[in-house]
Amino acid sequence: MAAPMRDGYAPWLALCRVKGLGCVSFKKLAARFAEPAKIFSASRAELEQVEDLRGEAIQGIIDFRGWAEVDREISRIRAAGITLVTFAEANYPARLRMIADPPPLLYVKGELTHADDRAVAIVGSRSASDYGRRVARDLARGLASLGFTVVSGMARGIDGMAHETALNAGGRTIAVLGSGVERAYPAEHEKLYQRITESGAVVSELPLGTRPIAFNFPARNRLISGLALGVVVVEATEKSGSLITAALAVEQGREVFAVPGEVGASRSRGAHRLIRQGAKLVENVDDILEEIAPQLLTRGRAATAAALALPQNASADACKIFALLQESPRQVDEVIEQSGLAAARVLEILLELELQGYARQLPGKKYTAERTV
Amino acid sequence: MAAPMRDGYAPWLALCRVKGLGCVSFKKLAARFAEPAKIFSASRAELEQVEDLRGEAIQGIIDFRGWAEVDREISRIRAAGITLVTFAEANYPARLRMIADPPPLLYVKGELTHADDRAVAIVGSRSASDYGRRVARDLARGLASLGFTVVSGMARGIDGMAHETALNAGGRTIAVLGSGVERAYPAEHEKLYQRITESGAVVSELPLGTRPIAFNFPARNRLISGLALGVVVVEATEKSGSLITAALAVEQGREVFAVPGEVGASRSRGAHRLIRQGAKLVENVDDILEEIAPQLLTRGRAATAAALALPQNASADACKIFALLQESPRQVDEVIEQSGLAAARVLEILLELELQGYARQLPGKKYTAERTV
Repeated sequence: MAAPMRDGYAPWLALCRVKGLGCVSFKKLAARFAEPAKIFSASRAELEQVEDLRGEAIQGIIDFRGWAEVDREISRIRAAGITLVTFAEANYPARLRMIADPPPLLYVKGELTHADDRAVAIVGSRSASDYGRRVARDLARGLASLGFTVVSGMARGIDGMAHETALNAGGRTIAVLGSGVERAYPAEHEKLYQRITESGAVVSELPLGTRPIAFNFPARNRLISGLALGVVVVEATEKSGSLITAALAVEQGREVFAVPGEVGASRSRGAHRLIRQGAKLVENVDDILEEIAPQLLTRGRAATAAALALPQNASADACKIFALLQESPRQVDEVIEQSGLAAARVLEILLELELQGYARQLPGKKYTAERTV
Repeated sequence: MAAPMRDGYAPWLALCRVKGLGCVSFKKLAARFAEPAKIFSASRAELEQVEDLRGEAIQGIIDFRGWAEVDREISRIRAAGITLVTFAEANYPARLRMIADPPPLLYVKGELTHADDRAVAIVGSRSASDYGRRVARDLARGLASLGFTVVSGMARGIDGMAHETALNAGGRTIAVLGSGVERAYPAEHEKLYQRITESGAVVSELPLGTRPIAFNFPARNRLISGLALGVVVVEATEKSGSLITAALAVEQGREVFAVPGEVGASRSRGAHRLIRQGAKLVENVDDILEEIAPQLLTRGRAATAAALALPQNASADACKIFALLQESPRQVDEVIEQSGLAAARVLEILLELELQGYARQLPGKKYTAERTV
């Protein structure tokens, strides 16, 4: 018999423990199975139908027996006041959902809100100069006062300055960790960590207790850019992790901004390289707004729709389709293809959403997410 | 009776004095008449056949009576040790010849050489910071030591630093003035002016005695960019004349480079704007070379050909066609169109150049400038 939790977060946590199952495979798996719980009761033949799913992952799903451990983790998560947000839920960050390898679930200490759809990341050197700190501060303050959530990695230097200034300006901020969210890393940011959990969120895709080893940071960086409309690199040496974040941002189709400095300053070399490669040179918040304005218009509409989340009892299939429509109006065929659901099921849900007033037909057989009642 | 000089420089100097005759009209006039002396003996009907030539200019040519004044100017030019270089001469700067509005003649104090085909302009603020001076110095030294001629406007600040460093590095430098070349402007650059005339050239399109009024500077700036493969803006406020030079460089199809500085430094604001508009961010000479390398390959070939100038007694038509072939190999039709000469005359000259070993036929009925004997 399945424990009650097993139909909730347990299968998600279990999936994260399956060997050989990465985030790209997960996304395909999620597209095939409406409810993750069903993945664990699926036959080998059903699993083999999932595109590119590796034999190791299929075997791992079939052999999975770690439910007791998963239940213990759920207890720990609850005890630590941590929230889980799964890919199927409407409050999973809309922009993060669009990347090629979104995490199946996020551990959240604090709270993610729909306001965070308007987020800009500010990252940079841990050994920042006074100049770098000053520019990071000015940009974070400007963005926060305009209602943008400032995303960063809570590292020393530029990251810490960005979070702190956003909070001081009364804004929201998200720190993405390369370790478990239950603990501040670095430890000297304990007080900052507390403040962020109160007026924003500390987020990670890594299980509680994961140590901050360097290996985890590049994967973490994809979440920093994935959560944001764009990434601002304030200071970066030529080997800085911020350049990885910038490269990931480009892959994800996000804007990349870089702050110039004096020729000869080693901490500006990475930013200058980015600018030569096409990153936009940033002097002030207006330079950022100019570039992300087109996305904001689209996001603005999506955010309005997103604010009208489906009722708690909506099915995962309905959430998935609603999320697709929130991104942009789509034709029925596109919804079928992108949801990975059967055509009949898609038509049924679209009709249901329309009747309930959560979706509306547009000319050209397109559907859009919109509250009409 | 025409004075002997009238068949040499006199008609050029006279053309420069004709009211309503700008450099664009001049270029068309020069394309129509092989010898400028013939312009003054042309009929109104002949002049009216020149595309877009204004009535005022036609009347000005017909009415021209200032030959005595022109002769006096020639005496002054000789007395001051100044050389004239006309558009028809083979040693007229090859790149300047290509712009839409090349001056009919250049007043040169010093000497222009074919080495100046490889020129890069460095311009910037008159009130440069120590940082700006340092970067200008490093770039000018690097370019000069690689054999590039450094072009600038001899102004205080960045310009002066660029000339001086190029000379100190044993390189060549060209100063383009917005006043007559017979005198240093600003006066405090008297010593620099002397050095430039000894290891380079002070150049202007303006008659001797022209005062340095601000009105002349934008036109002067088109010569700075016109002489160069690219323009480097080192420091520039948002209203700097260097931004005009950069804009002209873009129009002329020349590369634009800009040196970044710290956000908030007013002298870097113009450079930052240029970078946002597409100028290449420059940290060192390699960044410049990377961009102009493709042009250098073409220019390299042209420079080799240019070094093999036509004999002194070559006709202006022959010089014109040779210059066209130096720019790039051209088909006979292109030579006819671009030279503005009659087809029979073009064929005659091409044959002559080929027989004399100054041109060579390539596959596809193309001709290239090349010394084959």
